[in-house]
Amino acid sequence: MTASRLAVRDQAPPRYPIDDFLADIGDVPATTEAVVVRRRSRDFFWYSPVLNAALNGKSADVVVSPRDEADVVRICAACLRHRIPLTVRAGGTGKYGQAVPLEGGVLLDVTGLSAIEWSRPGAVRVQAGARISDLDAALRPSGWEQRMHPSTKRTATVGGFVAGGSGGVGSVTYGGLRDPGNVLAARVVTMEEEPRILELRGAAAQAVNHAYGTTGVITALEMPLAPAWPWIDVVIAVDDFFAAVEIGQDLARADGIVKKLITPMMWPIPSYFGPARRHCPDGKAVIFAMIAEPSLEAARSIVGRRGEITYAEATDESPGHVPLYEYTWNHTTLQWLKQDRTITYLQCLLPADSIVAAQRRMWEMFPDEVYPHLEFMRFNGAVTCASLPIVRFTTEARLNEIIAAHEANGISIANPHVFTLEDGTRHMKADADQYGFKQQVDPYGLLNPGKMRSYVPVRT
Amino acid sequence: MTASRLAVRDQAPPRYPIDDFLADIGDVPATTEAVVVRRRSRDFFWYSPVLNAALNGKSADVVVSPRDEADVVRICAACLRHRIPLTVRAGGTGKYGQAVPLEGGVLLDVTGLSAIEWSRPGAVRVQAGARISDLDAALRPSGWEQRMHPSTKRTATVGGFVAGGSGGVGSVTYGGLRDPGNVLAARVVTMEEEPRILELRGAAAQAVNHAYGTTGVITALEMPLAPAWPWIDVVIAVDDFFAAVEIGQDLARADGIVKKLITPMMWPIPSYFGPARRHCPDGKAVIFAMIAEPSLEAARSIVGRRGEITYAEATDESPGHVPLYEYTWNHTTLQWLKQDRTITYLQCLLPADSIVAAQRRMWEMFPDEVYPHLEFMRFNGAVTCASLPIVRFTTEARLNEIIAAHEANGISIANPHVFTLEDGTRHMKADADQYGFKQQVDPYGLLNPGKMRSYVPVRT
Repeated sequence: MTASRLAVRDQAPPRYPIDDFLADIGDVPATTEAVVVRRRSRDFFWYSPVLNAALNGKSADVVVSPRDEADVVRICAACLRHRIPLTVRAGGTGKYGQAVPLEGGVLLDVTGLSAIEWSRPGAVRVQAGARISDLDAALRPSGWEQRMHPSTKRTATVGGFVAGGSGGVGSVTYGGLRDPGNVLAARVVTMEEEPRILELRGAAAQAVNHAYGTTGVITALEMPLAPAWPWIDVVIAVDDFFAAVEIGQDLARADGIVKKLITPMMWPIPSYFGPARRHCPDGKAVIFAMIAEPSLEAARSIVGRRGEITYAEATDESPGHVPLYEYTWNHTTLQWLKQDRTITYLQCLLPADSIVAAQRRMWEMFPDEVYPHLEFMRFNGAVTCASLPIVRFTTEARLNEIIAAHEANGISIANPHVFTLEDGTRHMKADADQYGFKQQVDPYGLLNPGKMRSYVPVRT
Repeated sequence: MTASRLAVRDQAPPRYPIDDFLADIGDVPATTEAVVVRRRSRDFFWYSPVLNAALNGKSADVVVSPRDEADVVRICAACLRHRIPLTVRAGGTGKYGQAVPLEGGVLLDVTGLSAIEWSRPGAVRVQAGARISDLDAALRPSGWEQRMHPSTKRTATVGGFVAGGSGGVGSVTYGGLRDPGNVLAARVVTMEEEPRILELRGAAAQAVNHAYGTTGVITALEMPLAPAWPWIDVVIAVDDFFAAVEIGQDLARADGIVKKLITPMMWPIPSYFGPARRHCPDGKAVIFAMIAEPSLEAARSIVGRRGEITYAEATDESPGHVPLYEYTWNHTTLQWLKQDRTITYLQCLLPADSIVAAQRRMWEMFPDEVYPHLEFMRFNGAVTCASLPIVRFTTEARLNEIIAAHEANGISIANPHVFTLEDGTRHMKADADQYGFKQQVDPYGLLNPGKMRSYVPVRT
């Protein structure tokens, strides 16, 4: 992963009593070194030219690195005492500035909280800062793995994924993080005079799901597990992109085939790929897929003569290798961006009953401007696609025109060019349960302020 | 399971040179004892008054019990030499006379072929006569189990399920046996002068799938496996049946919830249940479900206040216990039949996009005559229901009227009151691939003759 561009604008001088805060938290590791603090205050928002303009230069005043939950409690109490905003940060792989502190203050680096509290068949209890790839590596000898992960598996954390993500590799089988059963429980520290530690079980855990850390500091998560299949990375080359979508749909709908990833992409997207480029014939569409080894033969039957399987090898996540999933989901955009910063992307959900037709209409409306990249997934029990097309960026006005055209054609947009929770949803308002929960756990509105922009503190 | 009624009609004298056949097969165990042969020639066709009239009294002339595949080859060669029909029989749990020899001859009892050839993570290779429950018990220490099984798991065999079944417990996740990936390979012995042993892999194995043994004698199967979750048997009581269907649909569509069974049934169906009766409040609809233990909490959230969970205990298949699945699929009908022989049933597939509406229409058309019993399952990637309603039987004409009304309302029927492959499908014709395959492997038409009724032998 290339280093993100450093913020170049000057910061306003700290408006908060950072020294008093540091005195309060005693021996909790902390740094105010400007280069470090500014670098840790960023994420991948620069994918979006719009967000880059809005968020570049935003920085915390201090980064703190709790060693355990007791440290988190001390930090929260100290923040509250001095009315300093607190933003939680982990792997920093967000793309909407989820962990960018809009109002400065304290950046809480949760990556030191990475222990596995326990695991049993089908479930694991882990601290929020555990890296997803480390957790899977630890689980694999027992035959289990996490149900889903972002394409940034090797950098992202479990807590960051739940707080800022929504789905990814594995969603073709298990749906999104929001679906019941995909987060079993969460433990959070509240932002109160005397911070409480709350155990949120089942549906109650939705209060912190995709809330960007505005509704409490997640310290631990109980997550469901899936069997750790021997996964096969498969590349299928297909003459026509829309034929590739049909094949992908047939694979996704085949309930007897165990799969983790089905990603059709139009040429020239694969021309920007690194080592995987050699499996992608010039001018052809490709499907990148992960199929469980015992299902591979059946998957080959489904592809038949409609496509050519140019690669089929066990998924290899060892150092120096690039697993196929690092060309999918948001990594697809990143692969292109590495060579060409003139593009950006969208995040859409296609209508389940007309995936091919809807996608074809968009291509006809925006040829050579919006390049289709689909991710098959389950949504409310049905097979559909997330769509993360590559967009040749010209102006924000044109981008909004493209978004409007998608919406007018029945394609939902989760706008990745906004940084608040409200603007990222179709309904343009905060989740009512999350809003109500925030009133209880963050009465002063100190947690990642500005992200739940409609929030009005109940105390000041 | 109650003993089936014995055939009472006299058999016509054997038309085949059975003694010559027996001399040819040497020491292969065989019996011509009439009581045994007649009993083994039956299955559960008596569920259907129509089939009972058609099939009662049909019997083989001899039952042979091969000890290995070499014995099967000898038996087939001997049958061919003497032009004696051969019908394969295993657990005898079919309900359409799949294993009833219409033209007498040899009944090949495959239950002696029950060895596990090998198993590895996600797949097993097993001889056709292995009992499904025995195979699961053998697999469980390794953390695996079969993806799906009929409600007759404790009697039925793997080969019988593939040859005569279509889905069952587990289909809510994996779809039907016909879906790609649900049968990995089959080994079959052909009915030729010199029987061949064929390995049918992937799509080729469909030639023997649900073909009632008309397209070769299956000796071994390679089947995909699923993780052996700690399953919880759950009973949910709901005031209104259609509300129960909504709850069942929400559970079935929740991609984050691992499940094996979701069975809504209308009162008074549960009033006919044995030990489980006490978990079914008078007058209420019930859902019988199997949920993986780590998903139980999320499932409870989905049920919420809409229903009452009256039972939730680990599935217990030990002797003397009745696991919940033995009240579902075709066991539902059996439970009622044990007390009342005036009913029969249908097998339907509801339209995925209007499950509740379609079911409600049928109840309004046939109140107190056709009692809804649904089985959620996946079909071509979508969540839908098999429907196996209990029908108060009056006449065959009325039964056909009910069937016609279902079809007129968009509900497919797989008629369980017919015994040929063709009549059991909507298209009323044999699967073209299976027909073509039969020409190669059974040129004389000796395998279970009459079941693929359109088959014309290519040699005589």
